Amino acid sequence: MNAGHDEREGLDTCVVGVDFGTLSGRAVVVRVRDGAELGTAEHGYAHAVLDRELPDGTPLPSDWALQVPADYLDVLCHAVPEALMRAGVRPEQVIGIGTDFTACTVLPVLADGTPLCELPGLTGRPHAYVKLWKHHAAQAQADRITTVAAERKEPWLQRYGGKISSEWEFAKALQVLEEDPEVYHRTERWLEAADWIVWRLCGTYVRNACTAGYKGQFQDGSYPSPDYLAALNPDFADFVTDKLEQPIGQLGDRAGGLTAEAAAWTGLPEGIAVCVGNVDAHVTAPAATAVEPGRMVAIMGTSTCHVMSSDQWAEVPGMCGVVDGGILPGLWGYEAGQSGVGDIFGWFVRTAFPASYAEQAAALGRDPHEHLTALAARQKVGAHGLVALDWHSGNRSVLVDHDLSGLLVGQTLATRPEDVYRALLEATAFGTRTIIEAFETAAVPVRELIVAGGLTKNALLMQIYADVTRRPLGVIDSAQGPALGAAMHAAVAAGLYSDIRAAAQAMGKARPAVYQPDPERAAAYDRLYAEYRLLHDYFGRGANEVMHHLRRIRAEASA
Amino acid sequence: MNAGHDEREGLDTCVVGVDFGTLSGRAVVVRVRDGAELGTAEHGYAHAVLDRELPDGTPLPSDWALQVPADYLDVLCHAVPEALMRAGVRPEQVIGIGTDFTACTVLPVLADGTPLCELPGLTGRPHAYVKLWKHHAAQAQADRITTVAAERKEPWLQRYGGKISSEWEFAKALQVLEEDPEVYHRTERWLEAADWIVWRLCGTYVRNACTAGYKGQFQDGSYPSPDYLAALNPDFADFVTDKLEQPIGQLGDRAGGLTAEAAAWTGLPEGIAVCVGNVDAHVTAPAATAVEPGRMVAIMGTSTCHVMSSDQWAEVPGMCGVVDGGILPGLWGYEAGQSGVGDIFGWFVRTAFPASYAEQAAALGRDPHEHLTALAARQKVGAHGLVALDWHSGNRSVLVDHDLSGLLVGQTLATRPEDVYRALLEATAFGTRTIIEAFETAAVPVRELIVAGGLTKNALLMQIYADVTRRPLGVIDSAQGPALGAAMHAAVAAGLYSDIRAAAQAMGKARPAVYQPDPERAAAYDRLYAEYRLLHDYFGRGANEVMHHLRRIRAEASA
Repeated sequence: MNAGHDEREGLDTCVVGVDFGTLSGRAVVVRVRDGAELGTAEHGYAHAVLDRELPDGTPLPSDWALQVPADYLDVLCHAVPEALMRAGVRPEQVIGIGTDFTACTVLPVLADGTPLCELPGLTGRPHAYVKLWKHHAAQAQADRITTVAAERKEPWLQRYGGKISSEWEFAKALQVLEEDPEVYHRTERWLEAADWIVWRLCGTYVRNACTAGYKGQFQDGSYPSPDYLAALNPDFADFVTDKLEQPIGQLGDRAGGLTAEAAAWTGLPEGIAVCVGNVDAHVTAPAATAVEPGRMVAIMGTSTCHVMSSDQWAEVPGMCGVVDGGILPGLWGYEAGQSGVGDIFGWFVRTAFPASYAEQAAALGRDPHEHLTALAARQKVGAHGLVALDWHSGNRSVLVDHDLSGLLVGQTLATRPEDVYRALLEATAFGTRTIIEAFETAAVPVRELIVAGGLTKNALLMQIYADVTRRPLGVIDSAQGPALGAAMHAAVAAGLYSDIRAAAQAMGKARPAVYQPDPERAAAYDRLYAEYRLLHDYFGRGANEVMHHLRRIRAEASA
Repeated sequence: MNAGHDEREGLDTCVVGVDFGTLSGRAVVVRVRDGAELGTAEHGYAHAVLDRELPDGTPLPSDWALQVPADYLDVLCHAVPEALMRAGVRPEQVIGIGTDFTACTVLPVLADGTPLCELPGLTGRPHAYVKLWKHHAAQAQADRITTVAAERKEPWLQRYGGKISSEWEFAKALQVLEEDPEVYHRTERWLEAADWIVWRLCGTYVRNACTAGYKGQFQDGSYPSPDYLAALNPDFADFVTDKLEQPIGQLGDRAGGLTAEAAAWTGLPEGIAVCVGNVDAHVTAPAATAVEPGRMVAIMGTSTCHVMSSDQWAEVPGMCGVVDGGILPGLWGYEAGQSGVGDIFGWFVRTAFPASYAEQAAALGRDPHEHLTALAARQKVGAHGLVALDWHSGNRSVLVDHDLSGLLVGQTLATRPEDVYRALLEATAFGTRTIIEAFETAAVPVRELIVAGGLTKNALLMQIYADVTRRPLGVIDSAQGPALGAAMHAAVAAGLYSDIRAAAQAMGKARPAVYQPDPERAAAYDRLYAEYRLLHDYFGRGANEVMHHLRRIRAEASA
């Protein structure tokens, strides 16, 4: 073989990334040299989300959301071989596999990794299943976790905006203990699905640094203390030592080699590098080339997740979490979020798009969002006379209050659907600006925004974000951001790049500054944003409790 | 003739009422003995509302709304004979005619009553036409009228809630002076259409006490002084003495006998009693039997007008007007109002009724309002989790601020169209309760509500009003409330009844207490109302100026 041939062989070296989403898994085969996505395939989960009943018909209460772990393995068996085939890549070209997962998605297993829901006698027990990120039935436990931590002045609480979510590891585990003690006591390991899938791939359970920090309250080398846990529930005192604690792997580390069993599932060579687990939003940051401090990535879909790394730690109010190495090794990873974004636009179209507009849209060959966007794009900033608060799903950052709700002010008899739609688009941009300002007030600079996710296709929305935030807006140049990010981590785990920064430079894909803020529109938005902030603080910080009162009245009326 | 025959002849004695609305006039033939409505007819105005251009094509600026006076005469020529025919009543049975009109609807005429817009050379001049009540282009003049009156502490200002509307006589006249001085100087009388039509019927110009007080700022026997008028504009100093002042007739007085010309138009006998002019909302009070203090009539249509008489005068904040004898001779007449009611529900259906709902409604044979009402009626008070402010058309009472706008709070992704619709229904009920409480706080008791107008057909809405106001709700028992009221006044003018109270007892029609407040729902509404009032005062009384700011921003963006 000559060097040329060697080099060509090197160019064709590939990695596989697998993104485990809420309803399906997506596999992508990526060329290591330049990040080219050679083939992709998707496989839906057979059981999707269990939110009404178990597979055997056992009914579930409201706010529950479970999954079946075997569905994840099916993705490995189907999507990976199919992506390989579509890519036209020979298995021996692939030198590593990386994964990312929704989080916090957790399950109870035996010491060998067997899910409890697969044990005879437990298939009809809801608490034996995977609790999906959006399982919201542990709110009572979460409230106690926060209150007790605040009373005891637990130092880690400030790393989570002063509030622990019902979605996270401790709340969900405590719910199991208190509602089905038998399942709790038979649980030998309580772990993230992100780590369970890696365990299935390489035979080794390595806990990833990302979810350990963001969802497992692991800070400065330790978990919440047994004393604290006992204060929540005496039987919970040993939860960490008995069920949670596990050696932690850094993002991009090699967790192990692909087992013969997993090689058979995937069609990939046995022994190739399997990367430590990771989270969908977090792997997207390097996929979008955001590996320097101050480059914030907003993954905008039904909700928005903001991730940014910084070389300095600061207490930024209302963060979802701040974790050392939580996104990139060696930097503080900040995560913030907006609970409702695309969801709000979807709700508006579903509940307030009039028949006459539906006809016009159909005649023009536009979907409702395209039609409203086209109409809304014609107007000048402020011409609709409206301001909205984007809290239809509560506020994740910076108020951290899921009991808040939406607000719209300024309606007249001349207000049209496109006016309200635009006001909702703008409200989410104001929400992002509020988060950015929280960072900057805490002396953590945000220099640039890079956007990923399904909403990037709405050019009006993107321009509004640039104008409202007065920042250049880059856009990720991949439809498979998370899977690409997982594949890039696999390339690092396989030793093809020295670290994720080097991988991002070669394989990451973003078009920088696609949208530039327009000074005139930005100035006009400053006036609307001032109104938004006034309403934000008045309704969000306790001066007017109408939203909480309405929620209580609603709950009582529905009881 | 024997007594029996005499009596039967008496029983068949009739009066005619003519209601001049915004788009048409309606005539009704009414039996004097019991108010039976024997025949009705409607005639649309050929020119409807001129809001874009004059008949000759002369364009009009925005906010203008004009009418053509000859259209009113056509109603006399067509609707009256047709109603007579339908009633099967011989002309000689009719002993009087009464009218009511929209207000303040004003026009400039010569000393003989000839409208200026009919003069050669003036047909292309917008200011020569009738200014309809909803002509809103004199806001600058109205603002000055209020400001100067407040500076000079004019005593009459408190009778109008501290604010003079752009709809009224002085603002509209001042606009003519300042925008078309020639038309102003050729105006010999500036009068209400309510009085002009009576002048056409009987040949005598009698100014009615109702509009003189409510729209002409005539209080305690005098108009605003020449000094005050000169402070508005030096050329306006003699406006009252030159163009406005006229002997005033009390409501129910005989203005004169039907002229031969008008007898020919209407087919009625020459010489029968023609009653002094009146206003649509105000004549409805006796038609709905509300002739005692404390019985408030709410005429609910696109907007709501509240009229109530009382034996005591008090300064009730935010009244549209308080006029001695303004509704019933000998009592103080209070008028309050909500600028948007049915208009808001109509706007919601027009702009936010989704296609899927339109299909369901069509399948069930319901119109959109019926469908939303049926869905909304299923839910318990507060189950929607929403509160709205009903200011889409501004607030007429008690804040008297047309630059306010609508607000909706509490939306979640589960909020449905029927939820918002119900919240809007409730918001208008809260608006009425706010007005009632303003009366009661000023020691003017409101004992009972009687509702008239198109919205009475919505039983859910009526029940909500009973529950929210904790008052029994009566409903007028006539589809032609204003025309019936006008006819009743004609019966008084003809001497068939001693006064309007006696006429109301015999001819008025209301079903008392059709809706009773439910204590449990009323208590639930108290909690929602508390939130409404907090928002009402916060956004309506200057603590948060977002609505005014948005209006200014909107105006600048649209400029």
